[in-house]
Amino acid sequence: MQVTALPQDPAEVRDLIRRGVVNETTAGMAPGRVQANLVVLPGEMAFDFMLFCQRNPRPCPLLEVTEPGSFEPTRLAPGSDLRYDVPRYRVYRDGELEAEVPDIADYWQDDLVAFLLGCSFSFENALIRAGIGMRHIECGTTVPMFITDVQTEPAGSLSGPMVVSMRPIPRGQVVRATQVTSRFPAVHGAPFHIGDPAAIGISDVTRPDLGEPVEIKDGEVPVFWACGVTPQAVAMNSKPPFMITHAPGYMFITDAVDEDYAVL
Amino acid sequence: MQVTALPQDPAEVRDLIRRGVVNETTAGMAPGRVQANLVVLPGEMAFDFMLFCQRNPRPCPLLEVTEPGSFEPTRLAPGSDLRYDVPRYRVYRDGELEAEVPDIADYWQDDLVAFLLGCSFSFENALIRAGIGMRHIECGTTVPMFITDVQTEPAGSLSGPMVVSMRPIPRGQVVRATQVTSRFPAVHGAPFHIGDPAAIGISDVTRPDLGEPVEIKDGEVPVFWACGVTPQAVAMNSKPPFMITHAPGYMFITDAVDEDYAVL
Repeated sequence: MQVTALPQDPAEVRDLIRRGVVNETTAGMAPGRVQANLVVLPGEMAFDFMLFCQRNPRPCPLLEVTEPGSFEPTRLAPGSDLRYDVPRYRVYRDGELEAEVPDIADYWQDDLVAFLLGCSFSFENALIRAGIGMRHIECGTTVPMFITDVQTEPAGSLSGPMVVSMRPIPRGQVVRATQVTSRFPAVHGAPFHIGDPAAIGISDVTRPDLGEPVEIKDGEVPVFWACGVTPQAVAMNSKPPFMITHAPGYMFITDAVDEDYAVL
Repeated sequence: MQVTALPQDPAEVRDLIRRGVVNETTAGMAPGRVQANLVVLPGEMAFDFMLFCQRNPRPCPLLEVTEPGSFEPTRLAPGSDLRYDVPRYRVYRDGELEAEVPDIADYWQDDLVAFLLGCSFSFENALIRAGIGMRHIECGTTVPMFITDVQTEPAGSLSGPMVVSMRPIPRGQVVRATQVTSRFPAVHGAPFHIGDPAAIGISDVTRPDLGEPVEIKDGEVPVFWACGVTPQAVAMNSKPPFMITHAPGYMFITDAVDEDYAVL
């Protein structure tokens, strides 16, 4: 099904995802609505992860946390079901990717807590409205992501490197891109780093660790934003016994409106 | 000791507080430094309270959370000791105020978690720099606070009404006051309500529930901000078995700089 032929209503898109009719990346779906990264952990790890998010708000901006055992995020998407409404999930055990699955009904436990984190799709919409092109969207590819040598602030048993996404921005638009994304701290906010990839431990900016490469043209600067895939790098580093996430690019679509998350 | 004669360095002020030399409200101390509301809870309540803060970021903007058992907020004030460095504490049991004490050494337990929340002193400095006078500071009184009829978003066992502080603002400066405080979401941010006190359940704006009254002059509008005393109203409502807070106005002084918490 073509993204352009999909309904605009987020609940209707979630229903198509739940029924398996839609199973691709959610980029461009339900335009103007907040999409979210998902992390699901057993209750005994929930405090540590929440502490981790509090200490690392740029990669992990918390939008909603469910009560233990509840799979319905009642604030951002009443009536939804986090066991089915993401097109693709990843299941980790002891830090190893065990499975990639279209639903997590068989994995659900009564003590699980679900965390929804802000996603860069929200600020990309704002950048596009400001006339700043997004190369990976123009190319129809997944944004390039890099595991940096910058360590997150540890919390309890959780620690690991920060993951960033990269977008090439024409030199004359870098300040504007910084201003526009600064308005959205709840969805990663301002750039984490502008320019020299080596300064944050990226040895080859043409070879991302996740997603797909994009060309950096003459006169463009690589600009890096903190990325909501960071918890997956932390999982691989800290090896929690059990953890479920979305698959990169396959997000949870909420009812919330992007612009409502702008601070000014 | 006169506030004006105090050292500017936050660590030196904390040392005077720790030794009992300074034991008054911290308004005006260590100018330009972030002051914080304190909430201390046993580990088994920590997740619920953190969830409460995530759902109620305006009254409860989390600045730092300590690891269970630790009384040192290593990020905001390395070397400090939360058992001694607040001039006055309140101890609650089952929602009842049991004691007001100058230190909590005798109450400390290995499972306690300390939460530091943003405080209005930070945005008041910004308002004063913008030429907007603070009546309660001019009068040398504690800001008037009101328990509203607006309910916070519950989390686990915690629920209760939102507490707001009130400042009279000349009609022509209300928009500017909104802009200035919008820059500081980590310290309560934009006003919660402008004008009619009855709209948020305040029957008599001259009789605050906490703090002291201030005059609202002709041509001034009462402007209300979410207040970090809200957890104390929630404690009285939800009756957690054990909870320690600062006494209103007697804050924890951090090393952090107010302006670093501005979003733009």
